Order: sequence, then structure tokens, then C-alpha cells
Amino acid sequence: MLTALEKADVLTAALPYIQAFAGKTIVIKYGGHAMVNPELEKLVLKDIILMKLVGMNPVIVHGGGPIIDQWLQKVNIQPRFVNGLRVTDEATMEMVEMVLAGKINKGIVNLINQFGGRAAGLCGKDGGLILARKKQNAKLDLGLVGEVVTIDPGIIHCLIREGYIPVIAPIGVNGQGETLNINADYVAGALGGALKAHKLILLTDVEGIYLGEEDGQKQLASRLNAQEIPQLIHKGVIRGGMIPKVESCLAALEKGVENVHVVDGRKAHSLLLEIFTNEGIGTMVVKS
Amino acid sequence: MLTALEKADVLTAALPYIQAFAGKTIVIKYGGHAMVNPELEKLVLKDIILMKLVGMNPVIVHGGGPIIDQWLQKVNIQPRFVNGLRVTDEATMEMVEMVLAGKINKGIVNLINQFGGRAAGLCGKDGGLILARKKQNAKLDLGLVGEVVTIDPGIIHCLIREGYIPVIAPIGVNGQGETLNINADYVAGALGGALKAHKLILLTDVEGIYLGEEDGQKQLASRLNAQEIPQLIHKGVIRGGMIPKVESCLAALEKGVENVHVVDGRKAHSLLLEIFTNEGIGTMVVKS
Amino acid sequence: MLTALEKADVLTAALPYIQAFAGKTIVIKYGGHAMVNPELEKLVLKDIILMKLVGMNPVIVHGGGPIIDQWLQKVNIQPRFVNGLRVTDEATMEMVEMVLAGKINKGIVNLINQFGGRAAGLCGKDGGLILARKKQNAKLDLGLVGEVVTIDPGIIHCLIREGYIPVIAPIGVNGQGETLNINADYVAGALGGALKAHKLILLTDVEGIYLGEEDGQKQLASRLNAQEIPQLIHKGVIRGGMIPKVESCLAALEKGVENVHVVDGRKAHSLLLEIFTNEGIGTMVVKS
Amino acid sequence: MLTALEKADVLTAALPYIQAFAGKTIVIKYGGHAMVNPELEKLVLKDIILMKLVGMNPVIVHGGGPIIDQWLQKVNIQPRFVNGLRVTDEATMEMVEMVLAGKINKGIVNLINQFGGRAAGLCGKDGGLILARKKQNAKLDLGLVGEVVTIDPGIIHCLIREGYIPVIAPIGVNGQGETLNINADYVAGALGGALKAHKLILLTDVEGIYLGEEDGQKQLASRLNAQEIPQLIHKGVIRGGMIPKVESCLAALEKGVENVHVVDGRKAHSLLLEIFTNEGIGTMVVKS
Amino acid sequence: MLTALEKADVLTAALPYIQAFAGKTIVIKYGGHAMVNPELEKLVLKDIILMKLVGMNPVIVHGGGPIIDQWLQKVNIQPRFVNGLRVTDEATMEMVEMVLAGKINKGIVNLINQFGGRAAGLCGKDGGLILARKKQNAKLDLGLVGEVVTIDPGIIHCLIREGYIPVIAPIGVNGQGETLNINADYVAGALGGALKAHKLILLTDVEGIYLGEEDGQKQLASRLNAQEIPQLIHKGVIRGGMIPKVESCLAALEKGVENVHVVDGRKAHSLLLEIFTNEGIGTMVVKS
Amino acid sequence: MLTALEKADVLTAALPYIQAFAGKTIVIKYGGHAMVNPELEKLVLKDIILMKLVGMNPVIVHGGGPIIDQWLQKVNIQPRFVNGLRVTDEATMEMVEMVLAGKINKGIVNLINQFGGRAAGLCGKDGGLILARKKQNAKLDLGLVGEVVTIDPGIIHCLIREGYIPVIAPIGVNGQGETLNINADYVAGALGGALKAHKLILLTDVEGIYLGEEDGQKQLASRLNAQEIPQLIHKGVIRGGMIPKVESCLAALEKGVENVHVVDGRKAHSLLLEIFTNEGIGTMVVKS
Repeated sequence: MLTALEKADVLTAALPYIQAFAGKTIVIKYGGHAMVNPELEKLVLKDIILMKLVGMNPVIVHGGGPIIDQWLQKVNIQPRFVNGLRVTDEATMEMVEMVLAGKINKGIVNLINQFGGRAAGLCGKDGGLILARKKQNAKLDLGLVGEVVTIDPGIIHCLIREGYIPVIAPIGVNGQGETLNINADYVAGALGGALKAHKLILLTDVEGIYLGEEDGQKQLASRLNAQEIPQLIHKGVIRGGMIPKVESCLAALEKGVENVHVVDGRKAHSLLLEIFTNEGIGTMVVKS
Repeated sequence: MLTALEKADVLTAALPYIQAFAGKTIVIKYGGHAMVNPELEKLVLKDIILMKLVGMNPVIVHGGGPIIDQWLQKVNIQPRFVNGLRVTDEATMEMVEMVLAGKINKGIVNLINQFGGRAAGLCGKDGGLILARKKQNAKLDLGLVGEVVTIDPGIIHCLIREGYIPVIAPIGVNGQGETLNINADYVAGALGGALKAHKLILLTDVEGIYLGEEDGQKQLASRLNAQEIPQLIHKGVIRGGMIPKVESCLAALEKGVENVHVVDGRKAHSLLLEIFTNEGIGTMVVKS
Repeated sequence: MLTALEKADVLTAALPYIQAFAGKTIVIKYGGHAMVNPELEKLVLKDIILMKLVGMNPVIVHGGGPIIDQWLQKVNIQPRFVNGLRVTDEATMEMVEMVLAGKINKGIVNLINQFGGRAAGLCGKDGGLILARKKQNAKLDLGLVGEVVTIDPGIIHCLIREGYIPVIAPIGVNGQGETLNINADYVAGALGGALKAHKLILLTDVEGIYLGEEDGQKQLASRLNAQEIPQLIHKGVIRGGMIPKVESCLAALEKGVENVHVVDGRKAHSLLLEIFTNEGIGTMVVKS
Repeated sequence: MLTALEKADVLTAALPYIQAFAGKTIVIKYGGHAMVNPELEKLVLKDIILMKLVGMNPVIVHGGGPIIDQWLQKVNIQPRFVNGLRVTDEATMEMVEMVLAGKINKGIVNLINQFGGRAAGLCGKDGGLILARKKQNAKLDLGLVGEVVTIDPGIIHCLIREGYIPVIAPIGVNGQGETLNINADYVAGALGGALKAHKLILLTDVEGIYLGEEDGQKQLASRLNAQEIPQLIHKGVIRGGMIPKVESCLAALEKGVENVHVVDGRKAHSLLLEIFTNEGIGTMVVKS
Repeated sequence: MLTALEKADVLTAALPYIQAFAGKTIVIKYGGHAMVNPELEKLVLKDIILMKLVGMNPVIVHGGGPIIDQWLQKVNIQPRFVNGLRVTDEATMEMVEMVLAGKINKGIVNLINQFGGRAAGLCGKDGGLILARKKQNAKLDLGLVGEVVTIDPGIIHCLIREGYIPVIAPIGVNGQGETLNINADYVAGALGGALKAHKLILLTDVEGIYLGEEDGQKQLASRLNAQEIPQLIHKGVIRGGMIPKVESCLAALEKGVENVHVVDGRKAHSLLLEIFTNEGIGTMVVKS
Repeated sequence: MLTALEKADVLTAALPYIQAFAGKTIVIKYGGHAMVNPELEKLVLKDIILMKLVGMNPVIVHGGGPIIDQWLQKVNIQPRFVNGLRVTDEATMEMVEMVLAGKINKGIVNLINQFGGRAAGLCGKDGGLILARKKQNAKLDLGLVGEVVTIDPGIIHCLIREGYIPVIAPIGVNGQGETLNINADYVAGALGGALKAHKLILLTDVEGIYLGEEDGQKQLASRLNAQEIPQLIHKGVIRGGMIPKVESCLAALEKGVENVHVVDGRKAHSLLLEIFTNEGIGTMVVKS
């Protein structure tokens, strides 16, 4: 049990961080374990409410992951792959949108509101938020998978101004009105850029970005220079699901987001510790 | 083909209606054929965009109907009935929310935006819009079926002020954070009251409210006094799906909505004709 | 008699024009038959009220024409000419101002208000709107005839912001406080420029700008390039009262007005058709 | 020639008056000699500009008087009388409006602007300022002579807020759109009431209100109780052109105007002395 | 050393308090040890900065105490007493004002600014903040000792709105412009009332309000009913320097301040613990 | 005794000056006789209230002078000099701050408020107004004497906007939080620059800037070119206490202050005459 004085010291120690981030926009990519484990979910969302209360403007972009797969199974849609890449056909897209915009999004909003915050959920269709296009791939047609073309952040600014925490499902629309599924990491990066966010934080299910192994031990990078990243991808040191994350980081840095972090979402309060303390958590990607 | 002058005359004839409704909020319950027939849907949504453009503030509340049933079938949820009333269990509610908030709601938003309007979709969770409770029924437990307790219209006002057309899915939350399915007619009536709307229009799949038959012909009421309604329900003249509609009308009238209409949504442009002309369409319910 | 559906179609067809012109300022030079024929006057002013109601900002500049001549006769002022140009002496100017600012201007304001609009009338003296100087003419002294030096649009913006339709009499003042009579076409062009208007429409008593005759038939230009105009004036193809109109068009185009039209004011609803339809009406002058 | 110190003392002495009247609306009925004598006119208008500059909100209502008669003669309109009261027919009204709204009003505006102020001229038609009706007279039809029904002060507030000095011509419109001539004293009183003015000042061509003669000398009242006035009119002590003035005073007092003064407009700077000093000038009418 | 998780738990635990006090005004009487001990001073002021940062509006009223006495000695002013009460003559008042408004006030402001806050210091003269009168005492003339008549909180609202922490020296002025010394406890209570503060916290040099001794041990009241206080003073249970504190509490409660606390200023972070935790600290005085 | 007309003429003559200075900021360095002579003080402060009332934004910077010396004597602090320059040690600085910020500043505020104005007093610590540094002097350490580094005018703008007259004591803080004494002339110049003031007026105890003697008579410059000043200082023509004044003038001119005046504060109403008349008073320094 902490003494009253210890508690007070912690609160006081948070002072400079609160000062530094007052009025700043912070985009959080929320997904993985932190989303499916109810205990972690509660901690993350309370951390975000605290950020809002002390004057920051958090914006949540969530993914879908395993929950989508469960629902695709329920309706007997078999995943189809071409060259190892999943193809999103219309039936799949329909289910994906319902899960992202109708289930996960509203569930997060509801929890935040139950914990005393004020959230409002949107997808990329609302207010024309995300104009997308089909992801270009020279050789393959992956179907209704999209990439961000432009963000119209008007509706987000409107919600922030009125005191809401915006919660965004990564759904976009192209010029023909087709619904497209976009990787939430990319949406977070693009949104960070469009909102001129101060910070982008990607919650992942690993400790951060690894730089290979040494003596059988994964080497965590606490700081990574943007200009090293292409080489690391090329060498296969950064690979798999970490690629969209680092590309999202690069895109955000390029559009002027000042701080970009890949953080371990499996640890309790990793978000809060990243914001309010100088504990070294995860990997910070910096502009070259 | 109309002459230029005929066109001009129509536009000029709309003048007094535009003057009368400038800045007024108009809540539209949107559902039935007008929602499932793509051609009608297009006409209705364009009518609503026109209302917005000429200075009115339309707010859409949509239902779900047959689309929900299709999806319940897809996931093999068998409807369960007690005394002829459907029971909404958790699995059903989960699907209902996904269809309403994730599919129908976003589909309407997308179409309005494609037609040049600016819409944003919400459900009753967003911004704490709809606080509900389980529907009280002395004898039966119908599960997660709700009724409106209070509306917090803050987020709707915010969207209207910024020029968006709000599109609302009839989902509420109770004090325990449980998701509840609410009849869209009731949501429309309660929202009309909370927004101090000028007009409430319920689109239906009949011509209006009938007062029984005469010589084998249904008698359409063009005007109905609120105080006659309980008696008409009691006698079974008004029955079935028309009951929530007239109860919604009564609730709205009581909270100060000035004009309440039940209109045939199957006819092209019925909404626009109701607003911009003095054609007699459907049934107007008036305060006693 | 049009069917309800035909009416609805016309209203819907107006939708894209209303969208395109929302919040845009449109300067209308109002004069000729459309001003002296009570039936036409009523139609024009109702068209302008409609424009205001659907979100445009119309500004009216009116001329005087035959009404001024009638009053000069009543007070026995004989028109004086030098080299065929009318000379405006002080007595004439006094009468001209009373007719323009005290009779025609207030008459238009009154009619708009009677038809349900909200107008306010000004001349170039009010709020220091029009600073003018005596028209320079190397050889002749035409007296109190002026040309616009600068426009101070502050009072117009103020009236627009408060929801009024400004109605402007073409009277200016020079640095010495002398009242000067200015051709209303020029005032409309200069005002369009100063207000950064989206559109300038000059109502005339001909179909538009003619490009000479062919087979005894006047050839109407539906579209004219600004850079051809000096040549057409030089050749005498454009001449007489059309010269101030095209010069006004050129001045407005130069100051950034995007669309400039010379339209037949003798036809019913020509203004409304020009704004709300794609009927080819009159002549559009375009920037080279 | 005053010394610098004497000048400074005068300015300092004005301090409490400036403090007391900051932001207060002051309605001035302007007419008589002060309007037709160019030297006096200049002094009065400069006094009003000074009032505006030091933070008061002066509003001018002007009359017409002899200038109207000159113009009626020019167009050969013979004044017609019934029982000694002038009848205003349509031809007369047309001329009256042109002189009031087109000549006198714009002349005052122009002079204020030339002296460095910012004025804007309106008549009762502009912005629907004055709704009037034909003056009721049991026995006689005096034609187009009106009395104020209601004032819509919106446009005046708009001009005051933007820093203009409103100048009002006493023309009203009735529900049928007919132009009516209203006595400027009554307009000033009604406007004072509608604007919740702090002060109403009527400039006249006498020293103030006389209470009869004593020893061949007119007795000037420096202070008069509102409730004595009906009796004084009845006795004929107050009569002729002073009647509309005192009735205007009574109307203004009733609507809450705090100070009402009848002041000698023939004396230089009488307005300024009334406002900025405690010199006893003219007659103050006080609420009983 | 606390673990990261323990730190996070403390921050999260503060969440409901931050939510509850957002935008609320909290008046803090600052004096005693917490003001003269540099280490405590630093902690108190950092606590106040934290309160401001997380959205509360703290207002500081400081006393003078021993620092005043030191300066009176330096200028050889001997304290004069009548019946045991100090008399404040003009020379004393002059020194008191300089110390309060020129030394202590500006010292607090400077420290807050050095710690990253934004403070601005005022005394009761600035913006006419405190209108006072000489303290009434039937038998004695205590000289320039005052009591609050009215507070004009305009300038405090202005500073709060612009993001400053107002720091107030307890100096008042009476109608004759005489400077009066007022007990800071009373000023804090009156200011709390005038600002409709949510909370008034009086920092003292004891643990709280004692209710006599028991077994040689002082009995601290953790909660005291306002209506018991007069009796406790009468009995001498509450006495000495605690009397102005409890009277200040009563005055604030009466004017609608919701929470009133007497807290031990000698303990580190007592302010912060009172605000952000549910630790029982000092005495809460509640409305009967 | 002046006649009413003479009074009116004076007020009218002030008109163009009021017009020219409406909304303009005017920084006044207030010190010398005008501050210690109660009669002059009253006149100066009333002049400043008048300036505020007629729409200017006066800002007062005051010095300390003889009053500081009196208090240093009272506490037996002996002035210490190095090379003829006074050294400000900590004990001196403590007393200087109390006199400037706690006595003189609050005294001025109190008088302005007693005369019907609304003043608020600040020193350079409040709102972080003056960031200073120790005055650099190659050879000597003069102790806590400062020079302005930057001005953060936010709090001054806030007070002006709310209608207060800001009164500033010339105290600054350096980055280490040390209190520094700054010559009030320099503060006035720097503040004039930071506020983009229209005018800087330095009240002195001489007639203005002298250009040496001729025939035993000091030659007053009524106008002095900024670029001549360094030469005049170098020659010793401008010397002593006039040097900070002219350097303040140069600094202000460089930062864009349009008019800079050195004026005789010993003459009654010299401020008011400088502002409201064209009397030649003191010396105007103009940009080369």
C-alpha cells in the first residue's frame, strides 16, 4: 500500500508531462491483446480518458483482427488467398464493416462512456473522413482492400472541440462509393498527419521493434532512425505485421507528427507510462 | 418535357415553404420500402439533401426490418417468441447492432455523401445520445428490447451546427452499459421532442392512417386528432405496426413538436411533396 | 397542370445548383423592362428572394432609365447635350438622386419586403460605399457624371451577414463631397469585383450580345471571349448601351468574378433559369 | 483666444458626462433651422460625430419641412386642406418620399461622412424598420399620413454594432405595402422607445416649452412633469407644432426612455452643451 | 522506488477527482508554515499548478503573518495594542501593504511562473476587486483594519479565462479611498462566495479543527456541522486564530460554496491529497 | 469664466484627435514631479482616464525615484556606488520592489479608480510580462539592475480588452527567477514596441530635449531626428537622465511605434494637450 506522500509524488511527477502535452492531439492505434483482453481494455481506455481530462486530445483508431475472423466463420465465409495474400470480396467486406463499425467501434465508445468519458464513434464514411482507393498491386487483385488517398479531418476537429474522444473504424470509401477495408496502422498514420498530431502511438503485441537476435535474445530498439527502416525491411529484420506499423510511422513523421512510438500493448498502463513518465517503453522512431 | 417557365413556376411555388422552414429541425423516420428499394432510397435521400441545402435541419432515424432478419438467418439465429412477441437475446442483439449501426447506418451515410450531401452516422451510444431501459412488460421478459429514458442531444446539435445531416441507428444503452434494441419509431418521436423539432415525418409502407373500411375501401384519414387515438387503438382500428407510429406521434406532440405526419414512403418524392407543396399526403396528427 | 412528381423532379433538378452556389455572392444589375413592367418586376424580385433563401447572397444594383426622364420633365429640366452626350448639371443631379435613391430604390426594397424577403436600400453615400470621380473625358465636360474609384464594401458585408438583401442605387461621391451619377452597369461590375462575387448577371432588354446579322437575322453569342470584345467594340459590332455592359463584364472578370452573364430581362424568370438550370440563356462572357 | 489650460479644463470637465453616457443610445430628432442653415447643420452634425466618437450611439431622425414644400411647388402640386389639415394624396406622397429619403437623408449622410464620421441612411421601409398604419381620424381622411404601429429595430442595431451613425427618414409602410408619411417627432419618440434609448433630444426652433406669458414675456419651462402635459394641451398653453413634440416625449417616457429634452436647435452647439455640460438648456420632460 | 505500475495506478486513481472538479473554481487560503518554509512552499505551489493543468481554476489568497512583523521592526514601527488588539495606524498600513502586495504577492507569482505555471498577482485595489469598510467595533478604534463589503470579481474572471492563476493580497479600499488591511481568511471566504467557488480550502498550522482534549489528546473533528460552530466559539472550544477561519467557512457556505475544508498546511502535499484522493485530511465543515 | 460656446468649441476642436487615436495604444512613462505633486498627479491621471473613455488604450509605466530613496533611508540601507554608478544589492532590490510594486503601483491604481476609471496594477513578474537579464557592463557589476530581454504582452492585451487601464511597475525577472530593477524609461520603450503602440509619451521634469545653450538660454528642440541622437549623446549635448529617455525613444521607434514624445510633466495637462490639441509641447523624436 502506497503512502499518501508517495501518491502525491507520483501526481506531482506527472506535472511536466501534463504541461508539455496540453492541447496536443495524440493519435492511438488500438488493437491486439489490449483490445481482446477485457482487463487490459479497461486499463487502456481509462488511460485515454485521463489523457483527455488533463487537456490532451486523444483520437483512437482501432483494428479488428481475430474478432473479424470469428464472424467470417459464423457466416461461413472461407478466407481466400492469392499468393499468400488474403482477398477481400464483397461478402467479406460487408461482414468486416459490420464488425468494425457496428460492433468493435460501438463497443469501445460504450466502455469509454461507462467509465465516465465522452466518446463518439465514426468510420471513414462519416463526414467524408477517409477518401481511399483500391490498394495498387501490380500483379494481384486483392479486392476491396484500400489505402488512404486523403483525410478530411473536419468532423474529428468538430468532435474534439465539443469535448468528445473520437473513435475511428478503419473503413474508407473510394470515388465510386465502394467500401474499402484499410489496415488500421495506415489509417492511424494518415490521421496523425492530417490532424498535425503531436504524437502517434501504436499499441502492438510485442515489446517494440526488434533488430534481430543476439545470443538467442531478441534485441529491442529503444530508438530507431527513420532512414534506417527501408534497409531493415529489405534485409527482413523488420517483417510481417511490423511492416505496416513502421510504414505508418514513416508516413506520420513525414507529415510532421513530432513523436512516433511503437509500444507494448500487453503491459498494463503502457500508454499512460509512455505519456506521463520517462520510463523507457517500446521503440521511438525519429526523423532522420 | 417541361418548359423553362413551368420549371421556374415550380421553383417559385416552393418559396413560401422554404421561408417557413428556414432553420427548423425536421426529424424523419426512414424505413420500409423506401429503404430497401434502391430507386426510392435515392429519391428520399436526395430530397433530404435538398431540405438541408435550403436551410432546414433534417435528422434521419432509420430502422432495420427485413435486413436484420436476413442476417439473423445467415448466422443461424432462430427467432424466439413468447406469447407472439419476439425475444431479443444477447446473440440476437449483437447481430442487430452490427446490422443497424455497422451496415444500414453507414450505407445511408455513404449514399448521402455520394449524392453531394454531408452526413455522419451515430447510434445511441455515441456521445451518450440515448439512455434507455429494458422495456417494462408486466408478464413477459422480452430480453434486450429497450425504451428511451432520456436523450442527450448535444452531439446532434454539434453535427447540425457544423453542417452535417445526422443519421441515427435506434440503439440505446442502459445504466448498466447493456445494449438495447429500440423501435425506430419511438426513437424518432423522442428525438423530435428532445430537439424541439418543428416537424416529425414517419415514412411508412401504407398511405397513412386508416380509419377502417367502407364499401370494401380503406378510409384514409388526412387529419387525425391526438385525443381520438387511444380510442382507435382500443377498438383495434389502429393496430399492429401502426401502433408504435401513432404512439411516437403522440409523444412528439406532447414534447412540443408542432407538426407530425405519417406519410407513404412507397411513393416517389413523398417527403419532398410533404415539405414543399400543399398536396395532401398521408395523415397529419394534430394536438387536440 | 403539372403532376406532383413533375414538380418534385424540378425541385430535385435544382439541387446541384443550390449546392454549387451556397454562400456565394451574386451581383445583379437590375433595370430595363424588368423594372418598369410590374409583372416582370414581381417575378424578378421573387427569384432573388428564392436565391437568398436557398443560401446565396444576391446583391441588387438598379438603374433608373425612363423613370428619371419622366421626373426631369415634371420639373421642366430640359436635357442638355454636348456632342450627343447628355450633360448632368446640378439641378439634373438633384432630381436624379431623388428618383434613384428616394423612389426606385425604396420601391424595390418595399416590394421585396412585401413578398416576404428582407431588403435594405443604400446609395453610394451610405457607409462611404462608393468613392467616385468625375468621368474623365478629354474633350467634353459632361458635368456630374462619375466613375467608380474605389468601393468600401463594409456596409454591404454587414447587411449580408445580418440576412438582408442589399439594394444599391448607383450614386457616388467624390473627394469634395459632390454627388455623381454613375452608370449602374459600371457600379454592378465594380461592386462584383469588390465583393469577390461568384457571379455577375446583367439584365438587359435584348437577348444577349449579338455578333452582327446573318441573312437578316441577329446572331446571338451564347459565349464570348473577353479578349475579343475590344475588337468587337472597335468594329461597331458591339455598340450603344451594350458598351457599358460589356465593359462592366470585363472589369468584373479582371477583379476575379468567376462568371459573368448578359441575360434577357424581358423573359419571365430568366434570372432563376440562369441560376437553377442549364438552359442556355443570353451570353456568358468568359476570361480569355 | 483660450489658453491651453482653459482648453484642458473644458475637456476634463466633459469627463463625467462621457463616463455616464458610454454605450448609451441617444435618439436625436433633427429638423428646423438646424437643418436648413448650413452653418448650424455643420455644427450639429459635428456634435453628433463627437458623441459617437466618445462612445455614445447617436441615432438621427430627420424631418423635411420647407424643403418638401419647395419641391411640391416645383412639380406644381397644390397643397390641399380639409378643415385646415393638409391631405396627402399619392402624388404628394411620391414627392415627399423622394425628398425625405432621396435628398435630405442622403445629404445628411454625405455631410457626416465628409466631416469624418460614418453614417448610413435608411427609411422605414429598409429592413422593415417601421410598420405604420393610416392615421385614424374619426371625421377626416387625411390620405397617406401614417402613425407608427411597431418598430423592428434589427437593422438599426446592426448598423450601430458596425460603427455607423444611422440616419432615419420618417417614412413608414402599412400592411398593404402603402407608403405613409409620418411626423418625424413621432418617429423619434417611437424609435427611442424601441431602442430602449437613454435619451431623446428634440431640436426645435424655439427655446423649449413655454408655459404662457407673464408681463409680455414668454415663460420657458426648464422642467416639466409628464402628467401636467395633457392639461396644458387642453388649455391651449401647449399648441401647434409643439403638440407632436410633447406627445413624442410622453410616448418615449412611457416606453422607458430615461431622459427626454426639447432643445433650441437655433443655438450653436445646443446638442453638445446638453450632453457634455450642466448648462440649463431648453426643457426637460420628466416622468411623473 | 515505486514500480511503473504503482505509478500508473496512482494516476488512474486520480481520474474521478479530475472528472469531478473540471472547470470548478477552488479558492485556497495560503499562509502559515506552508508559506515561510521554502520546501513546503514549493510543494504547495506545484500542487496548485497541477490543479490548474488538469482543468480546475485555483485562486490563491495569501496572508502575511511573520514577514510583516519583520518589516515593521526594520522600520522601527512598534506594534500598538488596545485591549490586546493590534491597532493599525497609517505608517503600519503603508508597510503592511508594501509587504503584502509588493513582496509576498509578487514572490508567489514569481515562484509559480518559475515552476512552469502562469500566475498574476492582484490586491483588492486592482480592478476595484475589494470594496471594504473599517471594521466595526463598538468599543475600540483599531484603525485601518477592514472587512469586506462587496467583491467585484470581474478581473478575477478575466484572468481565469485567459489561463492565469490569480494570486490575491488581502488589501481593500473603502469608499473614501483609504487602504485597509483585511484578515486573509475573511477575504478567502468572501472571494469564494463571490466566485461561486466549488471548494474553499484554508491551509493552517494545525491538523484541523479540534473539539477539545480527551485523555490529554486533542480531538480532531474530521467533519463539523456549520450550525454547531457558534456554540463551540461561545464555549471557547474554537478560539484564537481559528475563529476567523471558521467564520470564513460559514460565510462561504452561506454564499453557496459547496465544500469547505480546514487543512494542515504543514504536511507535504496536503492540498493535493485533499483534492485528488479520499484520504481523510483535516476538517470538512458542512452546511447544516 | 468661459461661455458655453467657448466650451463647445474646445470640445469640437478635440474631434479630429479623438478620431485619429480611436483604438490606438498609447504608452505613458509616468514619473518625476507629475508623480510626487498630488495636484499634478490628479490632473495626469484624469487626463489618462479621459483618453481611455474616448476610445484610446493608455498603458502607464511608472518609475520610483525619490520615494524609493526615502524608504531605503528608513531601513538604513546606504546607497553604494562603484565608479559613480549605484549598485543594487539584494537588500536594496527587496525594498525597491516593495516600493514600486506594493506602494507606488497600487497608489496609482487606487487614485484612478477613485476618479472613476478602472485600473489594474502589474509588475513584470505578473503573467511573465518582462523577461530581463542583468545589465551588461564590461567593467562593473552593478548587481540586480536589469535590462529587458523580451516582453510577453498577453496579460496587458487581456486587461485592455476587458476595459482596464494597465499600470506597470518596472520590475523584471531573469531566467533564474531573480528580481531585477529596470529603468522605467526603458520598460516604457520596450512595452511600446511589444504592444505596437501608436504613441509613446515620456513625462519628464524638463521642457523637452535641449540642444545646448545659446546666449545663456537653453535651446529646446521641438523636433529631433533619431539619427542625430547618437552624435548628440557622444558630444554630451544629451546627457544624464535624458539618455535613458532618448534611448527608450530610439528603441520604440525601431520597433515601429509611430510617434514618440518627450513632454514636460510639470505643466498641468501637458498629456492632454499633447494628445488633443496641436499646441507645440516638448520634443517629438522622429524616425530618420
